[in-house]
Amino acid sequence: MTDEFVVTPYKVSGEVDYEVLIERFGTKRIDEQLLARLAKYGPLHPMLRRQIFYSHRDLDWVLDEYDKGNRFSLYTGRGPSGPIHLGHMMPWAFAKYLQDTFKAKLWFQLTDDEKFMFYDQLTLEETKRWGYENALDIIALGFDPKLTRLFLDTEYIKTMYPTAIKAAKRINFSTIRAVFGFDNQNNVGSIFFTSIQTVPCFLESMEQKRKVPCLIPCGIDQDPHFRITRDIAEGMGYYKPALLHAKLMPSLQGANKMSTSSGNETTIFTVDDRKTVKKKIGNAFTGGRVSVEEQKKLGGDPDVCSVHQYNTYFFEPDDKKLAKLYDDCRAGRIMCGECKNLLFEKVWAFLEEHQRKRAKAKDVLEDFFVRD
Amino acid sequence: MTDEFVVTPYKVSGEVDYEVLIERFGTKRIDEQLLARLAKYGPLHPMLRRQIFYSHRDLDWVLDEYDKGNRFSLYTGRGPSGPIHLGHMMPWAFAKYLQDTFKAKLWFQLTDDEKFMFYDQLTLEETKRWGYENALDIIALGFDPKLTRLFLDTEYIKTMYPTAIKAAKRINFSTIRAVFGFDNQNNVGSIFFTSIQTVPCFLESMEQKRKVPCLIPCGIDQDPHFRITRDIAEGMGYYKPALLHAKLMPSLQGANKMSTSSGNETTIFTVDDRKTVKKKIGNAFTGGRVSVEEQKKLGGDPDVCSVHQYNTYFFEPDDKKLAKLYDDCRAGRIMCGECKNLLFEKVWAFLEEHQRKRAKAKDVLEDFFVRD
Repeated sequence: MTDEFVVTPYKVSGEVDYEVLIERFGTKRIDEQLLARLAKYGPLHPMLRRQIFYSHRDLDWVLDEYDKGNRFSLYTGRGPSGPIHLGHMMPWAFAKYLQDTFKAKLWFQLTDDEKFMFYDQLTLEETKRWGYENALDIIALGFDPKLTRLFLDTEYIKTMYPTAIKAAKRINFSTIRAVFGFDNQNNVGSIFFTSIQTVPCFLESMEQKRKVPCLIPCGIDQDPHFRITRDIAEGMGYYKPALLHAKLMPSLQGANKMSTSSGNETTIFTVDDRKTVKKKIGNAFTGGRVSVEEQKKLGGDPDVCSVHQYNTYFFEPDDKKLAKLYDDCRAGRIMCGECKNLLFEKVWAFLEEHQRKRAKAKDVLEDFFVRD
Repeated sequence: MTDEFVVTPYKVSGEVDYEVLIERFGTKRIDEQLLARLAKYGPLHPMLRRQIFYSHRDLDWVLDEYDKGNRFSLYTGRGPSGPIHLGHMMPWAFAKYLQDTFKAKLWFQLTDDEKFMFYDQLTLEETKRWGYENALDIIALGFDPKLTRLFLDTEYIKTMYPTAIKAAKRINFSTIRAVFGFDNQNNVGSIFFTSIQTVPCFLESMEQKRKVPCLIPCGIDQDPHFRITRDIAEGMGYYKPALLHAKLMPSLQGANKMSTSSGNETTIFTVDDRKTVKKKIGNAFTGGRVSVEEQKKLGGDPDVCSVHQYNTYFFEPDDKKLAKLYDDCRAGRIMCGECKNLLFEKVWAFLEEHQRKRAKAKDVLEDFFVRD
């Protein structure tokens, strides 16, 4: 039963069928024609070529407007509930590609309020502290400080609140129940929160005092928030935000979503040291056989392998090299140990550089942050 | 059936039985003993002597703390949805008595967000504008600028929001349904709002960084908000707010609550001119008979008379004079026309002076307002 899985911003369960999700959410596939169009603005990002960003709402319209000279803003975000892992970084790297390609202003929201209200064990002081920690990873990715506005909800609330309550007035609890699966036991902050999440779609319009299109690259699990936003945007005097949806990011367990909640041992954090990273990749779930002999004879299964997933999503941007790794695995020409070592070298090269940039990010934090 | 009436901050219907309300809400009567205690701090306000402020929560505790040297703050508010009428002013005049008697700091909240979210026809720009209009009436009452902090929610939200979401995390929709009678059609802003209304109870504690008692003089219809606040206050590290409850303010129609919604013709606004006030009082509902002859013979009924109510609530502070008016009416010694004229002279004397102070209030607005 493909219908048994659940995808909302607050719950992902079951085995996600991304084709069914497109139908269920009523989004559109990024087809060959749209990819060809995107390629005209610059080299296609691997996550587009590989259908990791695979679905959209109104991307064609956003490009139409862009072609007419009406540039769009970008909006993405982070719920600061703990340290950043590689799964978080991948879609942000894609956001950077969009910023670079379209010279687009990016509004990057840190939802310290949300994580506090949704997680029993977290204090607001903790989510705020994580917000500033996480900001270092975001800045280290190389966003353009002139084109990036980073903010914590609690520090930008005076700007956001009037628009948030204008949104809230148009959203009733029936909608929240249906879209997020909430019930009467949900706290009233969690019920209100989607109104806050709506606002950054309009921040560029608010700043420029005219209607500016907004494009949101995000995990498809975040789509429900913006379905609500799209329903109310025009009534509020703004364009509906457009969306680019990614499949859920990979885990070293081979599961659907990499998450800190699945345990520190299977998640690579951006601050992990070399030894820790090596160990975690060494323990990764693969599509290997029970013995080297058998694998040489029968080949491995890269389709279920988390190492192959890591390469596909982020660490092997070269399509030919990726295809070779895939074929070699299938043919039994490469064993899991070697494949893990190759991945480790790429991951560590990335992380070593990232950690260097992350340390420097402290000095430029104020170039990125906006506050009331 | 005394149980058929409804009293919430958002709905008052049926004939309110204030004795039943004390039982239903679980509050305490302000009894003779407590009145005697209050009289020690200064002359008893007529609204206490006449049981208009008639019910409380923890007032005795607040006085115990005061006696120990732990002064309380005051909190009251206004939902700025239109012009101020005399019914609004009466409890604020009482708040001023409390400020003067106890030298208490008053936090005066203007809920522009609330009125916008609850009233379909009002824009946020309008409620904000009404907030500044209404502030003139508040200031004209003579509050001490050194001891008064006036604020619009949308302009003080950065200070309030972190505490509001800490409250929100502790309140679920089941509670909101039960307390306010909301349903799934309520917008998510209205559902969240009581979290905002909670914060001013704690503003003095937040500012002083220690636990400060708070006393809220308000219409008893506002009690449901603060029942919720009292349930969560200690868990948030604050004292439960104490309350002083007033009966609903009178109308010229003799109904339970004076409200702009009952029509401009039966409501005296603070900006009405002499002629308008005279006409409105002339048209007031009284306990008079069908003819002067009959009234002289049988007497009138001051218990149902809105003119008598006005005198009782505010315009005849002298108990002896009030009793004489009552007796003269019962005995047929005073006719409605004369009684209305007497009231009009007092109302107009008050309003003329108020309008003068109100015009001057514009110059001192900034002495009262706080903003983020």
